[in-house]
Amino acid sequence: VQLLSGVYQGHTLGTPIALVVHNHDAQPSDYAPLHQAWRPSHADFTYEAKYGLRFPSGGGRASARETLARVAAGAIAKKILQRAGISLVAYVARVGTVGLPAQWLQALLDGRGAQPTPAATLLVSPQALMQQVQASPVRCPCPEVAAQMQAAIHQAQSAGDSLGGLIVGCAYGVPAGLGEPVFDKLEADLAKALMSIPATKSFELGSGLDGTYLHGSAHNDAFVSGGTPGAAPLPAGTATNRSGGIQGGISNGEPIWVRVGFKPTATLAQPQATAGRNGTPTVLSLAGRHDPCVLPRAVPIVEAMMALVLADHHLRHRALAG
Amino acid sequence: VQLLSGVYQGHTLGTPIALVVHNHDAQPSDYAPLHQAWRPSHADFTYEAKYGLRFPSGGGRASARETLARVAAGAIAKKILQRAGISLVAYVARVGTVGLPAQWLQALLDGRGAQPTPAATLLVSPQALMQQVQASPVRCPCPEVAAQMQAAIHQAQSAGDSLGGLIVGCAYGVPAGLGEPVFDKLEADLAKALMSIPATKSFELGSGLDGTYLHGSAHNDAFVSGGTPGAAPLPAGTATNRSGGIQGGISNGEPIWVRVGFKPTATLAQPQATAGRNGTPTVLSLAGRHDPCVLPRAVPIVEAMMALVLADHHLRHRALAG
Amino acid sequence: VQLLSGVYQGHTLGTPIALVVHNHDAQPSDYAPLHQAWRPSHADFTYEAKYGLRFPSGGGRASARETLARVAAGAIAKKILQRAGISLVAYVARVGTVGLPAQWLQALLDGRGAQPTPAATLLVSPQALMQQVQASPVRCPCPEVAAQMQAAIHQAQSAGDSLGGLIVGCAYGVPAGLGEPVFDKLEADLAKALMSIPATKSFELGSGLDGTYLHGSAHNDAFVSGGTPGAAPLPAGTATNRSGGIQGGISNGEPIWVRVGFKPTATLAQPQATAGRNGTPTVLSLAGRHDPCVLPRAVPIVEAMMALVLADHHLRHRALAG
Amino acid sequence: VQLLSGVYQGHTLGTPIALVVHNHDAQPSDYAPLHQAWRPSHADFTYEAKYGLRFPSGGGRASARETLARVAAGAIAKKILQRAGISLVAYVARVGTVGLPAQWLQALLDGRGAQPTPAATLLVSPQALMQQVQASPVRCPCPEVAAQMQAAIHQAQSAGDSLGGLIVGCAYGVPAGLGEPVFDKLEADLAKALMSIPATKSFELGSGLDGTYLHGSAHNDAFVSGGTPGAAPLPAGTATNRSGGIQGGISNGEPIWVRVGFKPTATLAQPQATAGRNGTPTVLSLAGRHDPCVLPRAVPIVEAMMALVLADHHLRHRALAG
Repeated sequence: VQLLSGVYQGHTLGTPIALVVHNHDAQPSDYAPLHQAWRPSHADFTYEAKYGLRFPSGGGRASARETLARVAAGAIAKKILQRAGISLVAYVARVGTVGLPAQWLQALLDGRGAQPTPAATLLVSPQALMQQVQASPVRCPCPEVAAQMQAAIHQAQSAGDSLGGLIVGCAYGVPAGLGEPVFDKLEADLAKALMSIPATKSFELGSGLDGTYLHGSAHNDAFVSGGTPGAAPLPAGTATNRSGGIQGGISNGEPIWVRVGFKPTATLAQPQATAGRNGTPTVLSLAGRHDPCVLPRAVPIVEAMMALVLADHHLRHRALAG
Repeated sequence: VQLLSGVYQGHTLGTPIALVVHNHDAQPSDYAPLHQAWRPSHADFTYEAKYGLRFPSGGGRASARETLARVAAGAIAKKILQRAGISLVAYVARVGTVGLPAQWLQALLDGRGAQPTPAATLLVSPQALMQQVQASPVRCPCPEVAAQMQAAIHQAQSAGDSLGGLIVGCAYGVPAGLGEPVFDKLEADLAKALMSIPATKSFELGSGLDGTYLHGSAHNDAFVSGGTPGAAPLPAGTATNRSGGIQGGISNGEPIWVRVGFKPTATLAQPQATAGRNGTPTVLSLAGRHDPCVLPRAVPIVEAMMALVLADHHLRHRALAG
Repeated sequence: VQLLSGVYQGHTLGTPIALVVHNHDAQPSDYAPLHQAWRPSHADFTYEAKYGLRFPSGGGRASARETLARVAAGAIAKKILQRAGISLVAYVARVGTVGLPAQWLQALLDGRGAQPTPAATLLVSPQALMQQVQASPVRCPCPEVAAQMQAAIHQAQSAGDSLGGLIVGCAYGVPAGLGEPVFDKLEADLAKALMSIPATKSFELGSGLDGTYLHGSAHNDAFVSGGTPGAAPLPAGTATNRSGGIQGGISNGEPIWVRVGFKPTATLAQPQATAGRNGTPTVLSLAGRHDPCVLPRAVPIVEAMMALVLADHHLRHRALAG
Repeated sequence: VQLLSGVYQGHTLGTPIALVVHNHDAQPSDYAPLHQAWRPSHADFTYEAKYGLRFPSGGGRASARETLARVAAGAIAKKILQRAGISLVAYVARVGTVGLPAQWLQALLDGRGAQPTPAATLLVSPQALMQQVQASPVRCPCPEVAAQMQAAIHQAQSAGDSLGGLIVGCAYGVPAGLGEPVFDKLEADLAKALMSIPATKSFELGSGLDGTYLHGSAHNDAFVSGGTPGAAPLPAGTATNRSGGIQGGISNGEPIWVRVGFKPTATLAQPQATAGRNGTPTVLSLAGRHDPCVLPRAVPIVEAMMALVLADHHLRHRALAG
């Protein structure tokens, strides 16, 4: 990575920071078949429909290489958040049908106001979690499940096939008050940021889709008394955290947690039927180093996009609160 | 509704259109208990944490009354889209655990390029669908399921409880090419718009969360030859539509379809434990006309938000294409 | 004025404040001739060219009535600035050829770092200036010149003619550091804000057009030592203030001062030759209450627009500085 | 210049175009004195006040080197405008006190609807003008005046001093209808764009500051009949062009012309008194290649900024007009 501007003697200058990463490992010949056909479920066709032409090698701007810039920007956003006591951890919660056991979800559903269960303490300590995630090649904090995920990925790769899955993203230490009531709700900005990552299919806040099956009496997060006393005593938190740390567009002081679903990689090693650019059906066979499962590589991207949204709202709130 | 500006002799003037709707049916006394406590899972506390004070009657700006403005703006957006051949239909697909049968989902997964099955034809004709939805008090196009939904809602209401569920939103006639590759991806803008609706917990594009369990070979949407011949023959469409009409941030010409999950209403008629503003635990009992299930009323809001996003991208694309 | 939202028990709620002012004094018949012809140097034709139709009565949105909203918003911005110690004063410096004497300009050119001359002290005390301006019907702080301006305006009015002129706008107490280096320079945002006021023809920062005739050695503002000592001692200010309080897009702690030129009102009581909408030349004669000189009424608009820009940059800077 | 992205086989891809120009001719030692003192009327101090530190060599981001990016972007904007029949010419109209003779201003004040005078034809033909400007080292289209300007610049340089001046910018072929009525008025966007160029002190539209001395009857631009007949016959133009091609925020079909004033360069070769960063007065003497007059180099920047604003509004209008 080459630093072009914005930094001087180890400090940021307050002006834009420009980074360049040159790709010295491109193999355009791998993409030769794409000159004549559109990959199923990839952006080849839509780019061509929009712009009248496309860059065939490497998927052009639709390549996940684009996310490198997000991770670089997210690293700076994380530094801003760190000074405000906010930290982020994301991890792979499921690959295909191989997922973390139920107590992981339960730990996320436990609120700060509740007497934390031993399991919850163990599972949601940001530092411990971060270490477990970093120790795993598939970025899954539970070693047994991580091993099963790796096996599933290898099996898909052998078959020239691919797998999708689910990533959990958590933000700890977010104070109550970040966000906006209508136009830039915190959950809406997180949804936009995360659904802009290539291959995403679903976004869930807190209890998410599961929560929509429940009755209100089983879903509501009760506030727990016991916060700082004063003219306007704050609650100690909520007994559960199905809200995922956000209520009505604004953070409530609980950990923020979201889930992002990724589809199986569209580019396959096995032959696929599709339409040719000459107007007739064709079969597309692609060599190359296509990833059979993007989930492990998407973990830092999820963290980066969450960091960018939270850093923005942190700065906006600081303008308001002075 | 009072029209303050922007319209002259039945035509828009090109300048802002201001509408005012006065609420003549407010009952602030219903909200008296909220002066002293925060409703669980509502925005009472977060507004107070952000701004230092809040408007206690009617939930202030966190009330779904706010969405009236979205529906009004959406009505104008729909008129713009109509001239471009784009129409929108949303409906309630599930209330609590009562959902539409599997063939409804199958119809959404069928692509334009496939020989449409009779079921699909029946189910996804926009006009027929729209009529079925409008004929149903719960905005569910299948009369049998709609009856079960109504029964479930009445049962929850009797118990002073509430229900969540799922809404499907579809856009027909969207040409290939709307959207952007990275910063304002069409699915990201839809996610932000829909996750800004009060009480939303999940957003899914096309196959959504279900699709993340599949292998790539089972998930990819094959392009089908047979479109307009010419220098650059377009495909006739895709054989399936798990992509939900969007690939890499840009529409591909298939119907766009998304799913939005709503949590059960937070405000309950039954007593709820929470923290009081005086620092001690309290029990909140609320009279009033609180809706036990927002799903039926959220259908036009989903359509409006989709219309606003698509109209924006339609205009942006027109600037590009001239 | 009707307050529709955003305020509760005398405090702002943090959410949008909506105001409505109904015009109960419209006389559409005064504008009847405008249905068939375009006023010279007015927006009648350009609106019609852009939108295909226009609202003929009262000039539609091109009427200066539109600026009422700016003044209302500016009043709130001024309250924000007041808490940061920033105050604003604008006044009419010239009407047609009747202008303030040279020492007024000199007082503006004197910097904070200089030993303030008695004249400068007298002339630039914000409170004294504000009172003098408010005491004058033409919003000119010098009573002798104000009387001449009034006479000139009456003379123009008698002739069915109109006058332009110059307004000075000053901001006192602006700390060093507001603004941005390239994209939203403080002077650029001020220029946009002020050149968006109807009838404006010129914008000048500090020495302005006069300064462009000078040599650098005669134009530069020398920094004067003597500010707060410390690790990085600040200067006491600059000996002169030709910079107008801004250098390189960012405020330098000196008073900000700008000049805005207004053209003579386009709508005249005397007959004017123009093109008719039927394709043939016509003569336009307009009755009505058209203002022969907008300058006095534009003073609060200049203050309001400056306040909006400074309040924005104050909040942006607070986000940065924490 | 190095082209990093956005272009493929001689065509733009529709995606961002990234250019890098490396400065291989930096001489940081020239700026050594700036580590200990702030240049008068430069951004050294304001950057330090805002960010707490600054990049001392070369003025950092406040260097006019920054404008290279504007010219590069403007070149692309000009290509877009060219396809719409819009062309741009800027030139130096005055350096210090040496300016173009009065008929040049008269030619600008003549409208399209008038029988063009021979002088006007000669003077405002865009192609002829462009050639004359490019042939002049000081970018002044009148050779006699250009020679005087060069002499004045050399004289200032010999004295270690600097000069300011005035640039005229013209846009030809702009159709009626570009711009917005209130928030992004065409003249306001031009003012912001041009006042964001380093060293600018004044912005004038059409008759500008001169026009504010006139009566309305002498200032108004009469519409001239004779345009395309039809349901709504357009005027042939205006007899004069004091409006500078814009009325009420929207272009009227006449040439757009503006004037931008530049202050004399702040960085001087002669010694200057200023405040030192150690809190005591100091004298600053700077070696280096500082430009005694930025006007000739600012001509392409003025054109570029005008092109960017017009291209934006051209695209916005195309979205509206379809």
